[in-house]
Amino acid sequence: MTELTEIKKQDLLYQGKAKEMYTTNDPDILWVHYMDQVTALNGKKKVQMKDKGKTNCAISARLFTELREQGIVNHFIEQLSPTDQLVQKVTIIPLETVVRNYASGSFVKRYQTEYLQKFDQPVIEFFYKSDELDDPFLNDDDALALGVATREQMAQIRQLALKVNRLLSQIFAKMNVLLVDFKLEFGLSTAGDVILADELSPDNCRLVDLDTKQSLDKDVFRKGLGQMVPVYEEILQRLQKEEER
Amino acid sequence: MTELTEIKKQDLLYQGKAKEMYTTNDPDILWVHYMDQVTALNGKKKVQMKDKGKTNCAISARLFTELREQGIVNHFIEQLSPTDQLVQKVTIIPLETVVRNYASGSFVKRYQTEYLQKFDQPVIEFFYKSDELDDPFLNDDDALALGVATREQMAQIRQLALKVNRLLSQIFAKMNVLLVDFKLEFGLSTAGDVILADELSPDNCRLVDLDTKQSLDKDVFRKGLGQMVPVYEEILQRLQKEEER
Ligand SMILES: Nc1ncnc2c1ncn2[C@@H]1O[C@H](COP(=O)(O)OP(=O)(O)OP(=O)(O)O)[C@@H](O)[C@H]1O
Ligand SMILES: Nc1ncnc2c1ncn2[C@@H]1O[C@H](COP(=O)(O)OP(=O)(O)OP(=O)(O)O)[C@@H](O)[C@H]1O
Ligand SMILES: [Mg+2]
Ligand SMILES: [Mg+2]
Repeated sequence: MTELTEIKKQDLLYQGKAKEMYTTNDPDILWVHYMDQVTALNGKKKVQMKDKGKTNCAISARLFTELREQGIVNHFIEQLSPTDQLVQKVTIIPLETVVRNYASGSFVKRYQTEYLQKFDQPVIEFFYKSDELDDPFLNDDDALALGVATREQMAQIRQLALKVNRLLSQIFAKMNVLLVDFKLEFGLSTAGDVILADELSPDNCRLVDLDTKQSLDKDVFRKGLGQMVPVYEEILQRLQKEEER
Repeated sequence: MTELTEIKKQDLLYQGKAKEMYTTNDPDILWVHYMDQVTALNGKKKVQMKDKGKTNCAISARLFTELREQGIVNHFIEQLSPTDQLVQKVTIIPLETVVRNYASGSFVKRYQTEYLQKFDQPVIEFFYKSDELDDPFLNDDDALALGVATREQMAQIRQLALKVNRLLSQIFAKMNVLLVDFKLEFGLSTAGDVILADELSPDNCRLVDLDTKQSLDKDVFRKGLGQMVPVYEEILQRLQKEEER
């Protein structure tokens, strides 16, 4: 493995909606740049927002570090600059793993349940990561039939997702924030292990202030509820305060 | 239990799109009338068709009887007339259980796979039986959160559905027909047992002639491929021929 100080950014591997992924001189390491861009409706709504990238980069770095300390293997290696990180390169399993503690978003839309209705047990849903298909909902049999993941991988993902949920729920509770739901992505390391990847930020978590019940996440943008970046900065500040205790 | 010969039809309990369900003088027995009506698109397309009721009634009676002989407990009691049956009353579990052997219908639409692509293993999907919600697709966690079924019931339903699939696939194979997919409904008996209910007919099975690959099911109506009842009668005739062997 290359010394981290010798890692050089190389080619743009993937131009995402929120991040740019670059190869490096180490084939097992990617260089992630968090962009000042936010999108919704699968990219149909797209806006540039100053400081969005560095806020999400900082939140993600903190949460991945905290999860690692609590035993969740993940792709985060280190922060390089306010907007850039090194991560372990994985082969992303094309499943978006959604964990829900309270009803919101597409769940409420599909089943017409009450917003923020509490579930007795966390609800896990898989969506097939496919831009052409618009990320359709699928079940385990579908995923197997489509060759998206094996039964063993899905079982491992579920177990990891539930553990991440317990840890993140605790972290946010201390910040007076309710973890409503969130989306995870997992990948396979070269050794074949299932590893938590992508990002952990208000872009993929639904967060609600415990007192005011206001959204502190991308729903502010999706629903046009006001300035989004200050809300993300509020999450980062509460995280930093907790760290200082 | 009331003697079957003394069973009298009483009130219309449920006016369905394909069947009318009546109570009888025995609280555990329903009187089913198969109507000469066919609908598609959740009832938006609706047509009257002579002899459709009696054809489906006869097909259903035969398949339920065959399944019972092979050990699948089901609601069918007896045929009363060409269009009417007695069945055991159950509390329907509001899940439509779809078993797929080959890609078709909403699977092809959702995942853009090839029509009639063979699955290595049967794919089971649950849909939430709810007219207001348009029968949405759901997974086990959703069903649990919505109180639709318990984990144990879903496990039992899966096991039964797979056994029904093996038996029906064999029956249709002998008739030179491919069982592409089908929909089952299960209910709870007063004793709390999970019992196969509703109907088994070309209304809820996708059937394809093994040689010509022509649809021998409701897709003829859905896609406007020609006269539907003669096709249903063809299925009934092939079933009768197999019985006579
Ligand atoms: N450790 C990793 N190794 C390889 N790829 C990764 C890793 N972490 C995240 N990715 C992938 O890099 C991309 C990150 O970019 P971004 O989040 O902007 O994508 P996106 O616009 O959301 O698109 P997508 O629909 O692919 O997620 C995603 O496709 C994600 O799956
Ligand atoms: N043994 C049974 N006991 C009680 N209800 C039953 C039984 N078998 C079937 N049913 C229910 O009776 C109705 C049958 O009518 P039909 O198939 O015409 O309904 P439908 O128009 O398809 O409506 P639905 O959307 O409710 O299925 C269905 O609601 C079905 O769930
Ligand atoms: Mg992304
Ligand atoms: Mg029906």
